[in-house]
Amino acid sequence: MIKIVVDMMGGDLGSQATVEGVLAFLKDHHDVELTAVGKIEELGLLKDKAQLVDARDVLPMEAGVLDAIRAKTASMSVAIDQVLANNADALVSSGSTGAYLGATSIRLKKIPGVLRPALISPFPTKSLGKQVVILDIGASNENSPQELVQFAMMGKLYSQSVLDVKEPKVYLLSNGSEPEKGSPESKEAYKLLDGKFVGFMGNIEARDALDGRADVIVADGFTGNVFLKSTEGIAKMMSGMIKDAFKRNFFSKIGYLLSKKGFTKMSVALNYKNYGGAMFLGLSKVAVKAHGSSDGLAFMHALRVAYRLAKAQVPSLIEKGIIQNA
Amino acid sequence: MIKIVVDMMGGDLGSQATVEGVLAFLKDHHDVELTAVGKIEELGLLKDKAQLVDARDVLPMEAGVLDAIRAKTASMSVAIDQVLANNADALVSSGSTGAYLGATSIRLKKIPGVLRPALISPFPTKSLGKQVVILDIGASNENSPQELVQFAMMGKLYSQSVLDVKEPKVYLLSNGSEPEKGSPESKEAYKLLDGKFVGFMGNIEARDALDGRADVIVADGFTGNVFLKSTEGIAKMMSGMIKDAFKRNFFSKIGYLLSKKGFTKMSVALNYKNYGGAMFLGLSKVAVKAHGSSDGLAFMHALRVAYRLAKAQVPSLIEKGIIQNA
Repeated sequence: MIKIVVDMMGGDLGSQATVEGVLAFLKDHHDVELTAVGKIEELGLLKDKAQLVDARDVLPMEAGVLDAIRAKTASMSVAIDQVLANNADALVSSGSTGAYLGATSIRLKKIPGVLRPALISPFPTKSLGKQVVILDIGASNENSPQELVQFAMMGKLYSQSVLDVKEPKVYLLSNGSEPEKGSPESKEAYKLLDGKFVGFMGNIEARDALDGRADVIVADGFTGNVFLKSTEGIAKMMSGMIKDAFKRNFFSKIGYLLSKKGFTKMSVALNYKNYGGAMFLGLSKVAVKAHGSSDGLAFMHALRVAYRLAKAQVPSLIEKGIIQNA
Repeated sequence: MIKIVVDMMGGDLGSQATVEGVLAFLKDHHDVELTAVGKIEELGLLKDKAQLVDARDVLPMEAGVLDAIRAKTASMSVAIDQVLANNADALVSSGSTGAYLGATSIRLKKIPGVLRPALISPFPTKSLGKQVVILDIGASNENSPQELVQFAMMGKLYSQSVLDVKEPKVYLLSNGSEPEKGSPESKEAYKLLDGKFVGFMGNIEARDALDGRADVIVADGFTGNVFLKSTEGIAKMMSGMIKDAFKRNFFSKIGYLLSKKGFTKMSVALNYKNYGGAMFLGLSKVAVKAHGSSDGLAFMHALRVAYRLAKAQVPSLIEKGIIQNA
């Protein structure tokens, strides 16, 4: 049995979205022992399907690390208590990212040998259906070359376990594709990976990151976060422009109706809700952070990611990987 | 008179595009003394309008710094010779960026007091017609807090002189909007700017960079380059998706015809050709780097940017700014 503890309260949409997500997830996952933490009166639909644990408080979205540590009665904190008390495999929450990273990294312990955990997230690519995972997208502000090498290893395990890529192609995010390009840390990491790490393909520029050639892209947390948010920003800007173009006049509205299907397909491909949120890799437990605005569908995907990582025992694979490379 | 020297040969489209750009530019700029450097037999149309200087060789697009220094007969090198010999105000080229940055920074000298020159480029924003300039987008791999402070000053002067923004709003690119967010260098730069630099508004996240609030965004060269290329990458991906959506079937093609105008407007807003290329700020001369694939229109815009910077005497304004802040 895979034991998953779920913080039912953290997201913007409250327990309605998470209950819906849990129900959908449990429909096709039968080897799961699920613990749902939240206001118990809102979790009635899960009564026969999960263990319910009451938690009265909810951390606000702007909560930071200290808030998360202090707020012992908040659903996120109680969920972490449950992970520890039941020796669960995985934790899923859609609460504040800052609070989540802080509280989990303090309370769930790092895997022995891991220098720094990393936040990893799948991104869509030009090759429809293919995803690329990028890490670290914001757990750290800076990373050493050795940390980047560990990220390569952890990202590869993620790609293999969750996305079923047999031989992931791993790149370093850089400002040019030549070996001598990059920040001082990434240039050093290049030397540590080149010829020694199976699947390492060299540097990749941000403009090629989503073109489908890469399975895993490694960046320091600051750069990875800028990448994540640049893509978000321009995607939002262009989506707004598309809407404006169609809203222009009567004819363009008809134009929208005629070409709607293709645009729906595009928005599905770009929709983060189909990608299951980010995952905090390098902790002794699987720790998935669903988007704050997750609806039922997005939350279900986050639960699936947690399930797959736990089922593949990714934390112990990482531990083995660290020992082999030490 | 504003003296501008133009490398006519460096771009992908050869002298045809640059001649067209120069002719269009000269039509409404009459206080210009223009020197055109290139294969003289291809520059016939400029005969009565510019001084022509023959150069037989062209640097390839993949040329690096050393190539640029060695290739003394290449049009880019001869153009730099001309800038120095005639004490010209500005240089414009659409040749290899690496070669251009290397050759100009070695031969055109930095402004006294400038720690590092920076590559600056305008970007479109959600607010139609409004541009934001971002620097450094790739001249350096890393930058000190003091360099970032100088970038803020240089970016502000650019925004005032070229884009006519009276009181530019200047931000630091960061992984969060709070003062304590950022890379170690940007956090330190924040402290140096906060309350001391007129127009400094704090940190901005990459996702908000193009939403129209900022006039100038400062980043280290590695991060700025990742930002530039992320936006390029996702814009390209989405443009491809839009094309596919319209090409889907007969109806969607009609849909395109009906909504075409709005999409043309969108592609004009996103088209780098309307933004005049990048500029290498901090050198004693105005040095504009047009896109390698510049057509006549793009090249004309690059010439305009060079003209405006030279007319406003931005290099000496930067020198004054450095002295005042020293």
